[in-house]
Amino acid sequence: MIPNILAERYATPAMKDIWSPTGKVRLERELWVAVMKSQRDLGLDIPKEAIDAYEKVIDEVNLEAIDARERVTRHDVKARIEEFCDLAGHEHIHKGMTSRDLTENVEQLQVYRALEVVRFKTAAAIAKMAKHADESRNLVITARTHNVAAQITTMGKRFSMFGEEMLVGLESLENLLATYPVRGLKGAVGTQLDQLSLFDGDSAKALDLEDRVTKHLGIDRKFTNVGQVYPRSLDFKTVSVLNEIASAPSSFSKTLRIMAGLELASEGFAKGQVGSSAMPHKMNSRSCERVNGFKVILSGYLSMASQLAGDQWNEGDVSCSVVRRVMLPDAFFALDGLLETFITILDQMETYPAVIEKENQHYLPFLLSTTIMMAAVKQGIGRETAHEIIKENAVAAAKAYRTGESSGNDMIERLAADGRLGMSESDLQTALQEGSKNIGAVSAQIDVFLKASTNAVSAVSGAGDYAPGSIL
Amino acid sequence: MIPNILAERYATPAMKDIWSPTGKVRLERELWVAVMKSQRDLGLDIPKEAIDAYEKVIDEVNLEAIDARERVTRHDVKARIEEFCDLAGHEHIHKGMTSRDLTENVEQLQVYRALEVVRFKTAAAIAKMAKHADESRNLVITARTHNVAAQITTMGKRFSMFGEEMLVGLESLENLLATYPVRGLKGAVGTQLDQLSLFDGDSAKALDLEDRVTKHLGIDRKFTNVGQVYPRSLDFKTVSVLNEIASAPSSFSKTLRIMAGLELASEGFAKGQVGSSAMPHKMNSRSCERVNGFKVILSGYLSMASQLAGDQWNEGDVSCSVVRRVMLPDAFFALDGLLETFITILDQMETYPAVIEKENQHYLPFLLSTTIMMAAVKQGIGRETAHEIIKENAVAAAKAYRTGESSGNDMIERLAADGRLGMSESDLQTALQEGSKNIGAVSAQIDVFLKASTNAVSAVSGAGDYAPGSIL
Amino acid sequence: MIPNILAERYATPAMKDIWSPTGKVRLERELWVAVMKSQRDLGLDIPKEAIDAYEKVIDEVNLEAIDARERVTRHDVKARIEEFCDLAGHEHIHKGMTSRDLTENVEQLQVYRALEVVRFKTAAAIAKMAKHADESRNLVITARTHNVAAQITTMGKRFSMFGEEMLVGLESLENLLATYPVRGLKGAVGTQLDQLSLFDGDSAKALDLEDRVTKHLGIDRKFTNVGQVYPRSLDFKTVSVLNEIASAPSSFSKTLRIMAGLELASEGFAKGQVGSSAMPHKMNSRSCERVNGFKVILSGYLSMASQLAGDQWNEGDVSCSVVRRVMLPDAFFALDGLLETFITILDQMETYPAVIEKENQHYLPFLLSTTIMMAAVKQGIGRETAHEIIKENAVAAAKAYRTGESSGNDMIERLAADGRLGMSESDLQTALQEGSKNIGAVSAQIDVFLKASTNAVSAVSGAGDYAPGSIL
Amino acid sequence: MIPNILAERYATPAMKDIWSPTGKVRLERELWVAVMKSQRDLGLDIPKEAIDAYEKVIDEVNLEAIDARERVTRHDVKARIEEFCDLAGHEHIHKGMTSRDLTENVEQLQVYRALEVVRFKTAAAIAKMAKHADESRNLVITARTHNVAAQITTMGKRFSMFGEEMLVGLESLENLLATYPVRGLKGAVGTQLDQLSLFDGDSAKALDLEDRVTKHLGIDRKFTNVGQVYPRSLDFKTVSVLNEIASAPSSFSKTLRIMAGLELASEGFAKGQVGSSAMPHKMNSRSCERVNGFKVILSGYLSMASQLAGDQWNEGDVSCSVVRRVMLPDAFFALDGLLETFITILDQMETYPAVIEKENQHYLPFLLSTTIMMAAVKQGIGRETAHEIIKENAVAAAKAYRTGESSGNDMIERLAADGRLGMSESDLQTALQEGSKNIGAVSAQIDVFLKASTNAVSAVSGAGDYAPGSIL
Repeated sequence: MIPNILAERYATPAMKDIWSPTGKVRLERELWVAVMKSQRDLGLDIPKEAIDAYEKVIDEVNLEAIDARERVTRHDVKARIEEFCDLAGHEHIHKGMTSRDLTENVEQLQVYRALEVVRFKTAAAIAKMAKHADESRNLVITARTHNVAAQITTMGKRFSMFGEEMLVGLESLENLLATYPVRGLKGAVGTQLDQLSLFDGDSAKALDLEDRVTKHLGIDRKFTNVGQVYPRSLDFKTVSVLNEIASAPSSFSKTLRIMAGLELASEGFAKGQVGSSAMPHKMNSRSCERVNGFKVILSGYLSMASQLAGDQWNEGDVSCSVVRRVMLPDAFFALDGLLETFITILDQMETYPAVIEKENQHYLPFLLSTTIMMAAVKQGIGRETAHEIIKENAVAAAKAYRTGESSGNDMIERLAADGRLGMSESDLQTALQEGSKNIGAVSAQIDVFLKASTNAVSAVSGAGDYAPGSIL
Repeated sequence: MIPNILAERYATPAMKDIWSPTGKVRLERELWVAVMKSQRDLGLDIPKEAIDAYEKVIDEVNLEAIDARERVTRHDVKARIEEFCDLAGHEHIHKGMTSRDLTENVEQLQVYRALEVVRFKTAAAIAKMAKHADESRNLVITARTHNVAAQITTMGKRFSMFGEEMLVGLESLENLLATYPVRGLKGAVGTQLDQLSLFDGDSAKALDLEDRVTKHLGIDRKFTNVGQVYPRSLDFKTVSVLNEIASAPSSFSKTLRIMAGLELASEGFAKGQVGSSAMPHKMNSRSCERVNGFKVILSGYLSMASQLAGDQWNEGDVSCSVVRRVMLPDAFFALDGLLETFITILDQMETYPAVIEKENQHYLPFLLSTTIMMAAVKQGIGRETAHEIIKENAVAAAKAYRTGESSGNDMIERLAADGRLGMSESDLQTALQEGSKNIGAVSAQIDVFLKASTNAVSAVSGAGDYAPGSIL
Repeated sequence: MIPNILAERYATPAMKDIWSPTGKVRLERELWVAVMKSQRDLGLDIPKEAIDAYEKVIDEVNLEAIDARERVTRHDVKARIEEFCDLAGHEHIHKGMTSRDLTENVEQLQVYRALEVVRFKTAAAIAKMAKHADESRNLVITARTHNVAAQITTMGKRFSMFGEEMLVGLESLENLLATYPVRGLKGAVGTQLDQLSLFDGDSAKALDLEDRVTKHLGIDRKFTNVGQVYPRSLDFKTVSVLNEIASAPSSFSKTLRIMAGLELASEGFAKGQVGSSAMPHKMNSRSCERVNGFKVILSGYLSMASQLAGDQWNEGDVSCSVVRRVMLPDAFFALDGLLETFITILDQMETYPAVIEKENQHYLPFLLSTTIMMAAVKQGIGRETAHEIIKENAVAAAKAYRTGESSGNDMIERLAADGRLGMSESDLQTALQEGSKNIGAVSAQIDVFLKASTNAVSAVSGAGDYAPGSIL
Repeated sequence: MIPNILAERYATPAMKDIWSPTGKVRLERELWVAVMKSQRDLGLDIPKEAIDAYEKVIDEVNLEAIDARERVTRHDVKARIEEFCDLAGHEHIHKGMTSRDLTENVEQLQVYRALEVVRFKTAAAIAKMAKHADESRNLVITARTHNVAAQITTMGKRFSMFGEEMLVGLESLENLLATYPVRGLKGAVGTQLDQLSLFDGDSAKALDLEDRVTKHLGIDRKFTNVGQVYPRSLDFKTVSVLNEIASAPSSFSKTLRIMAGLELASEGFAKGQVGSSAMPHKMNSRSCERVNGFKVILSGYLSMASQLAGDQWNEGDVSCSVVRRVMLPDAFFALDGLLETFITILDQMETYPAVIEKENQHYLPFLLSTTIMMAAVKQGIGRETAHEIIKENAVAAAKAYRTGESSGNDMIERLAADGRLGMSESDLQTALQEGSKNIGAVSAQIDVFLKASTNAVSAVSGAGDYAPGSIL
């Protein structure tokens, strides 16, 4: 059998359980049983023994037997009805239900539970981002824009920056969970005709049955006006939120790949892992690269989801079926793999303060040219004049380094030698030293992130302590 | 000049104003003035005359002059600073600001205001959906699944079905507006160093300045931990919500195209419009087709947005710049055009009850085969036997019609002639008549939609009375 | 284990064999053996016994054992090297090779062979389209534009229309196969340093080795200037061609879904298949819907492919790895399933000439309004006057039908009654009768398609006779 | 008016001319005139004076007048017919034609000519890549995989690598141009009924007319079996080729952004351009970033194109219309802007050999660890032992550098000090020196690229000498 590579190679058991074929059959059977119980409570003539008989065989899932039935009937739900009835020795399930009364609700339940797993992992990742942010809050690094040295910041701020983005993603997820509507029991075209027929037109009973079933699912909200299916824009919104959550880890991973190229940091090695045999020094950012790969995958599934949304003909058909069979589980497997990988990176990554400091020293005169200018102005020179002098020497220093004329950044020496500015090398070094400690509002910003992440994480039981499994 | 076709051909003035080059320059100048006023209030030495001079020339926008400047400086913001300063005869704007302190906030303001336009139009469309739903709540139609007749429903329910989907979309939009965070004044790499320098390190003043500016923007929430730019996953979420909102109109339009193919309904003609000259009878669903086209366009911009999210290197760079210049306004223009077109369809569309009734009559025996079976069972025949008899005759009737053996659906005649069922043609007709009125829970469902839509629409001032402009 | 749903539920054995984990291990081992043999021929000291030993165990593929090794080494290729060597009891494989010298070539071989399967199935589908086109070349149908009756055409022309589109797709595929370049043995960063080292700098031998290997693969062309990996724009082109091929079947399937909604045709039933139990008359277009679903899936994988192309950093890295593991096999599985489904539809579909004729009769007066006008002009009336009269009556007839005023299209009666045109009902009927046979250049057009398809199909051995397996 | 930002800000005149509204009206009028001339030659009664009158006013394009007409007729083609006829004072155009006989052919002509512009620019870019490849063929650089130093290569090879990818893209483009089929004159539903009616059923004349028109267009090949429209999979193939061509420039630009981050190279400054005013040293990779942005945009338009392909209902409708109005020109504008930007980068970029050499020296011991091992083996030590010793010292050296224990890469000193290997520091330095010159097959590989690019470029007149305009 050809395995689902996303599930088998990357996803974690919690996510796989939700989407496994066996698990889905079980969820369906549980739904049928819940419906029968409710129907019996509401007065339908369903013997308790029959319900018991069904309940007893819920876990006897034989996929091959079901598959064989489907090859005859060409109808997947019919095949599963027959199998369950044969196992139980009764014919009481699926009364007043059409296929979609079963499958839509069960698939939404899978989505809902998978979203809960994502919430857990997202919160776990945020907790680790926060820990890093706090620990490295004062580790000064060279901030880059356009991938070129720009100003100083701290490593803790960099964690907070991506961490805060992730918090916004978590917020979107929480909102989705809080407002997620389930289709409910609505019959073949959404009019509840089938349910009403069952209760001889008693609409109170039909609604009561539906409410009992959504309660069984554990989802609070339901659609009222659906057709055969619930609107696929809900699937789109779901996959969209998955993409949103993947964004911060993806940006962080790209940044870490760039930092690794400068030897400022690395994603580290797992215990026992070695680099390339030919090149033992190599610490490849393979996990970071994988995170970026997962993001691309999620974007592809999003494209599928966006094509299903807005393509409902009349009360619905099944042109979305094969797409949803692939897109929904695989998008969740991909994000699950992404988050597990990302959490592992956060656990194993290393920063190299010595190399970071070397980079800072190399760029500091550039990063602080404004600071130098202000110091010069205080000593009496005009602002525009100072700016011009500094600019000339900065450009000359950059050029000298790039042409090999100087072996490092000699801007300070140049400025000291340039009599016009009126600052000695010692004045300049003092300005540099002071400037190199000025990290602006970073500390206060990090505190804001720490507080928000603590609140968010503490709302998700166990997320703060999550230890990832071992990834490939 | 090559015009933006989405703006010029399809978008409405409210949306075009937000994104016009002139309008953007104006928004930037208003922001600069707001910043100057706040800086002056907070103690910076900015003369009131200077501020007045700037304010006086805000509306003197000369795009060509700015463009000429940019061709020299190769820096768009610098060009606009110079132009504004030259016009005012002062040099006091942009103090302690970097380019992104200007552009990020102004672009977010454009997004925010454009979202408000979308909210208005979405609510207006929902109001019209609700009106239709109410008016046609009892117009029985043949519901279709797999594009094949399935059961009966009503036209009002069909409006409610897509209307409810649209309500969920509006909810997502409201949530986005309520939680949308603006970047604020954060300096070149997000540390607020530039703002703090301006106030000699007084962090309270730097925060106060930022709060005054976000207040000027009219957006309540702000990011704390950004880099050079705000996270592009926020743009992604924005474009994602636009796609979500487009889904229900798109599904409705596809359904209306199918209905038009059956002559059950049409999108109607504008006053004075005629069909094809060669084929005057043709009432083409060109507006519906256009709605579907816009949905495809939105899905393409979503693909762009999803590629920007998760692609931030370090504190950010501008590889997103050209994409956002295209994607953000064009996605809003497309959705604006879509909603305007959709609202026009809702205003002009017609249903043809006579043809609808003809279709119902043709399919009724099929749609009500379960009802017939139950009536037969009441008269004493076994359920399985009844089912088998009905099935045989249904299939035979379908086949006879398709092969030309019969000119219509003769299932009732066949059943009457088939002695086994024990029902006369008159019994059968009675069952049909009664069944044809049984629209399940549809009325109650529509009421739920009407109530929800009234609530949602009334929250958006003026949306309930919106009359669309004339579309091409 | 969670199965790959596209492979297990929809793809055919020919395609599954290529992408199965076991099959891939076998292809790798065959490559290693081919390399060893070539290396030995070129003078490297590799004992024949060792090669024999490796060859003997090629088929002893134990995926679990390999997996266990990978969990230790965290390096998938290393794990497979160790397993193969342990089985053979030698250590001679992979000399002068880096991981990508193995995996890139083997994956390209998988792609190439999968493309050959696609070529076969595409040709098989074209053959069946041609057969239908020929058989129904004179079956007059109502052509629709905007989904509204426009003019007459024939069913054969409709097959030819989509068939010709498919031929263009096949041409793109043939072009891809003819120009597909393989990466070859290029070493860790593409300089062939590793290969040259092996032969002490003898570049002729290094090239000879590479040529022998590409010959083993059966692919004629190779890249020269690659880095670690071949350019991912080649994968993009591949997935793009898959999408192109899927287009005609997808359009045909949508059209058939619409025709089924009008009861003009249906995709038919498989032997033994029945419709919905509750609605036995229903012949759902589930296979057509599935084809449309597969097209959406392919579009999603295309989105992934387009994001990998243009994202190579330096000599390459593995951020594409997880994407390609999913996208490449799954895109091929999806297209394979699509083509198998489409071929099945072509085998089982039915048209209903009686209903088609009924539709033609209903619309004929509209479809032939130009013909009527010309006949009137010949009888002496002015062109513009005739046009106006016809238009008035056409619109009135359409309106009367839609409002229930008339039970059918009474345009002919109206025109006859309208004295102004000067044509009797019999004149008009004659014009209709003659016009209804005028199918323009359709026959000659179909012949062009038949000839081109015969040429294309005959170039693909066995494709003309392909009988699909049984689909779900 | 809101301008098309891609056209106005980034595209070049050659491309803008093709897609300008005025240009399109002119192309349409030229087609109408060509049709009239052919019709007259084939015997239709069209006065020469009328044709002359039309020809005289071809260039009198008044977009506002046309727009005003469309707002009345709601039919864009009808508006343009009326305008042209009024200008000419005749009514002879558009005989036997339907709207799509005009618009499809003209739009395909725009696509075809735009593809020719792309071919020119692609060839021009390849010529510059080849020049760089030749000039820097011996500039040794540190090749990176996973963004980490791997082996040595040369800058020339890096140019050849991306250059060869671009050549493959050009090949795809040439293939598309050579096989591009035009729709021709086929009438309302593709049966040529309208054309045949014009010539009283004379099919030879109808075909002759069509051949004359395609000859006028300058496109050799035509479709035979179309409906109202040509298959949209052709548009998809077109946009797909545009994406393929964008891939190599995009990968090159990302690589240059990474090199700029290491100060190994930069995209340079335009004459007069300065860096950020606050940070004068900054040479931002803004053009490279822009290239990457354009690639994202192209991927979005591809998503739109892929959704149109496979979505034809019956003989076609216009749900593709608004999409194609946006996607086709904008995709070409984006690629045109990308290529112009890329060519500018190639003209202005700089490499910094001094910094490159510094990087090489830093990594050389790692890059050549295999070379060192082999030298040691020659001096008598066992291979596995040598490997282990080297690995230990490599890892130690990397660690020492990262922890600040050493200020550079001291692996050679470590190995010399480690008595086990049996190589002195001088032996080791010799090995390094020799290894640092060993660039494998790079020179021969570059020659292959140079030859292929010369062939390809020389086939495109003028491409070898193209000098880009000035970009923003």
